[in-house]
Amino acid sequence: MSLLAVGALAYDTVETPSGRVEDILGGAATYFAVGASFFGPVRLVGVVGEDFKHEHRKLLEECGVDLTGLDVRPGKTFRWAGRYAGDMNVAETMATHLNVLDGYQPAVPAAFRKSSFVFLANAPPRTQAHVLDQVPGAFTVLDTMNYWIQETWDDLNEVLKRVDMLVCNDAEARAIAEDHSLIRAGRKLLAKGPKVVVVKKGEHGAFLWGRDFFHAIPAYPLEHVVDPTGAGDSFAGGLVGSLAAEGKVDERSLRRAMIMGAIVASFTVEDFSLRRLRAITRADLDARYREFLAFTAHP
Amino acid sequence: MSLLAVGALAYDTVETPSGRVEDILGGAATYFAVGASFFGPVRLVGVVGEDFKHEHRKLLEECGVDLTGLDVRPGKTFRWAGRYAGDMNVAETMATHLNVLDGYQPAVPAAFRKSSFVFLANAPPRTQAHVLDQVPGAFTVLDTMNYWIQETWDDLNEVLKRVDMLVCNDAEARAIAEDHSLIRAGRKLLAKGPKVVVVKKGEHGAFLWGRDFFHAIPAYPLEHVVDPTGAGDSFAGGLVGSLAAEGKVDERSLRRAMIMGAIVASFTVEDFSLRRLRAITRADLDARYREFLAFTAHP
Repeated sequence: MSLLAVGALAYDTVETPSGRVEDILGGAATYFAVGASFFGPVRLVGVVGEDFKHEHRKLLEECGVDLTGLDVRPGKTFRWAGRYAGDMNVAETMATHLNVLDGYQPAVPAAFRKSSFVFLANAPPRTQAHVLDQVPGAFTVLDTMNYWIQETWDDLNEVLKRVDMLVCNDAEARAIAEDHSLIRAGRKLLAKGPKVVVVKKGEHGAFLWGRDFFHAIPAYPLEHVVDPTGAGDSFAGGLVGSLAAEGKVDERSLRRAMIMGAIVASFTVEDFSLRRLRAITRADLDARYREFLAFTAHP
Repeated sequence: MSLLAVGALAYDTVETPSGRVEDILGGAATYFAVGASFFGPVRLVGVVGEDFKHEHRKLLEECGVDLTGLDVRPGKTFRWAGRYAGDMNVAETMATHLNVLDGYQPAVPAAFRKSSFVFLANAPPRTQAHVLDQVPGAFTVLDTMNYWIQETWDDLNEVLKRVDMLVCNDAEARAIAEDHSLIRAGRKLLAKGPKVVVVKKGEHGAFLWGRDFFHAIPAYPLEHVVDPTGAGDSFAGGLVGSLAAEGKVDERSLRRAMIMGAIVASFTVEDFSLRRLRAITRADLDARYREFLAFTAHP
């Protein structure tokens, strides 16, 4: 089924114990789209500046990402700089330059308005609501971040009433639910509107709450993490991409999708930017999926 | 098969967001023994002072804990005071009074020397080695803590060569392996001697490494944690108790035992001291075990 992603494309400067890279392709929607592309075509709506490189447009197109909705505007592409140290669970943001992203209101092309699944990457909740207005009938999935939780609390709670699924990390879940217990938080998030809540816990795996079920998975165990950037967004890509490919959202498809999200994320962090995801195939995902089933097998 | 636990009995003073309790029954070997007692009889070797209450001796005996090896010495029972705040993942130790535990060298009664499984609770590594000398042929399981890792590094590495299984928490695993990656740490710990390594991650579940397999489980999801004290030791109790009941250590029995460990720990933290564990039956463990299988079911 058709899948649309709306959100940021970026050039990132990232420093981790493994090294430093400058102006590499990044952005929530980028990581999501490439992560989802293993499961089927992806439609992308976002904005870049005139400096957005042809090779990056080509990279996305080669992944099967439809760039009809990519807006190229005068100015520079959104830039983010961050670094990771120690256990690399949290990025320290060094710089954020919105550039063309400043005030951007996504316009969903007519051809994309009948998408079956829509992913609203981290953005101002009002911008996310504006996208929702344009995609009636879609199964909608929303991500957010600490900034919007703090600065636009009411808007965020309004948009949460309108989406089918929330995907966020553990710190965000605790903040939105206003509860330090993640287990209680999950239930409280469901009460805010979404029918499904997925909480990503990085190296600790992920939780999923439905109206009448709970599911927990560990992360895929990695010996070496190069760069955690994009792990959460590509997790969402694997998750929603897998759901869109199955064309239905139920307990079983969600469980498969959760594992696929974890597997996609495990590849993402093995190199900077999209390098590792670009180097693998669906068969590599499937191999890790089988491994995952083995080390979480029931006795 | 017979199971022997050697280690500390204590009177704890504990403060958590749920309240404060003074001089309640605690200690690593106590929590282990009661946790293991759901699966069969447990033999205990340890030391207490003359202040050890009759009701606590009775409590343990009612759990099927054989106290033949309980040494009562002049002086006071070991005391520990600690408090938990915030996410309650780490205890802040407020006071430690070794009392009769100071310099204690466990003597395993002749009747206990042929135990099939032996758990060496957190203690000086040389003391643990002294116990190993007395239980030839047993399947031995060792726990430790940050103090011994820092202060008695060589002794700890020596005793690790002699045990079959290491059970410790994630911080301890990283410290013993000298590696911040838990996944690499697991492999390095195996190289130090144990055939099986179990790493407890509190609310994030647990990992298990064997010579040729890896296994990961989430924790049982709890909405309300009253007191985390004893979670790790009762986890070990459920784990080793389950193994001893099955009478064999292989990939399947270890997986079942890991889940049982997580389930026992989930009950422990629902109240102070051993209150919750004393209030439940094996049927309660089995009910949560089935729930656990449901929320970790394969798609």
